[in-house]
Amino acid sequence: MRLARVAHSDGVSFVALEPDPSAPREKILAVEIDQHPFGEPTYTGRTWPMADVRLLAPILPTKVICVGKNYAEHAREMGGEPPENPVIFMKPSTTVTGPNAPIKLPANSERVDFEGELAAVVGQPCKNVPAARGGEVLLGYTIANDVTARDQQQADGQWTRAKGYDTFCPLGPWIDTEVTPNDLALRTELDGEVKQESRTSLLLHDVGSLVAWISRVMTLLPGDVILTGTPAGVGPMQDGQTVSVSIDGLGALTNPIQAER
Amino acid sequence: MRLARVAHSDGVSFVALEPDPSAPREKILAVEIDQHPFGEPTYTGRTWPMADVRLLAPILPTKVICVGKNYAEHAREMGGEPPENPVIFMKPSTTVTGPNAPIKLPANSERVDFEGELAAVVGQPCKNVPAARGGEVLLGYTIANDVTARDQQQADGQWTRAKGYDTFCPLGPWIDTEVTPNDLALRTELDGEVKQESRTSLLLHDVGSLVAWISRVMTLLPGDVILTGTPAGVGPMQDGQTVSVSIDGLGALTNPIQAER
Repeated sequence: MRLARVAHSDGVSFVALEPDPSAPREKILAVEIDQHPFGEPTYTGRTWPMADVRLLAPILPTKVICVGKNYAEHAREMGGEPPENPVIFMKPSTTVTGPNAPIKLPANSERVDFEGELAAVVGQPCKNVPAARGGEVLLGYTIANDVTARDQQQADGQWTRAKGYDTFCPLGPWIDTEVTPNDLALRTELDGEVKQESRTSLLLHDVGSLVAWISRVMTLLPGDVILTGTPAGVGPMQDGQTVSVSIDGLGALTNPIQAER
Repeated sequence: MRLARVAHSDGVSFVALEPDPSAPREKILAVEIDQHPFGEPTYTGRTWPMADVRLLAPILPTKVICVGKNYAEHAREMGGEPPENPVIFMKPSTTVTGPNAPIKLPANSERVDFEGELAAVVGQPCKNVPAARGGEVLLGYTIANDVTARDQQQADGQWTRAKGYDTFCPLGPWIDTEVTPNDLALRTELDGEVKQESRTSLLLHDVGSLVAWISRVMTLLPGDVILTGTPAGVGPMQDGQTVSVSIDGLGALTNPIQAER
């Protein structure tokens, strides 16, 4: 199932994205889910054609936990070897934004980079989850862009400021509850030019291991998001450009870049 | 006004802590606030004697933003000079716990330290607040203990894991909305022995400057908590000990230490 969150004429709803049975194929309907998408969803009966809704970030997490240097080639391009254990950091929940919403470049940074990533969405409260059962606590997967003010990351040592600006965590376009995350192609394009191209099979610590590592520390709550790390090829974005991260089966997460006014 | 959150026989409520007019002085009543404590509170008319309620963390923040090395003597005891600009990091909201609740020592850390701190509680949504107006966006102040697995902090480089365990952010006992934060005595005791003793006048970046620095990056929301940094004297805690952080006018935040079972 594909779960999304949409703005419509009456407000905001969680929806399932489903083929429209009354229309030619490839026509998709947004089918409203009652309340929230965790567990077996119930439906309200309301539907909208996709043309009548706007996709938002598919979830509003209580926390966004990220993993640094989880692809060997990216660790090397950052000037080091990958660490033995996952290194985790956080983005504030106020960084989250949706597909097609602008990423805003803060005026006090000289260089803001894209970092395309596979994101896992937690489906239930959990603590101390064994790696082999990591997948069981997840609602599904979506795409994230771990936008980073590279100069501030280097200046501060701690990464919270550099990765914490409003709009620095685009998520979407939807959460797929059925995809298998083990070997998905991931690609980041800037104005149509391919910048990052890798596969999730190259993750040094796979999704189950990350769930185990993080839930050893903190209770994960429904909707919490784990960013699994970015592959090599990170680079800067400029005002007026468009960045797009695509992952097999998860669609494409596209955002325009806008200088802060 | 002193704002608290309490468990009582009917559930959980925000309350104002006020002298009981019908009792000898020093007798305090918990006076129930309708819904939430932001803005001018309205009262439900229900009250409880303090003996009949249990103090909880006085707020449940959407984010906890912390400041590293904001007292010169602490920066030096950690082996460096204080940085020119505030260095920020986050604790997940799942670290928050209340007065008298146990701090749980994770079995995989050899050294878990107390770090007593003044905490500022945000009262309204805000972004890009000038330092001179930082105080205006705050609901008030409380006490925090920025509990830290020191060995994991050193191993990881990023501090999220070391500072992110459940129960690693005791807050309380209440939020004082009137205290002036500029020169308050702060003291941390371990089993009654004074370990940290300083004054908030020694903060390198004062509360207004911190609000400005952080809100330049991220939108702050009502209830968000800013930990202003710890003074010199940090040290380890052991199973069975009791840690207590006290600040002039804000009372004392006391927690027993418990090995993880």
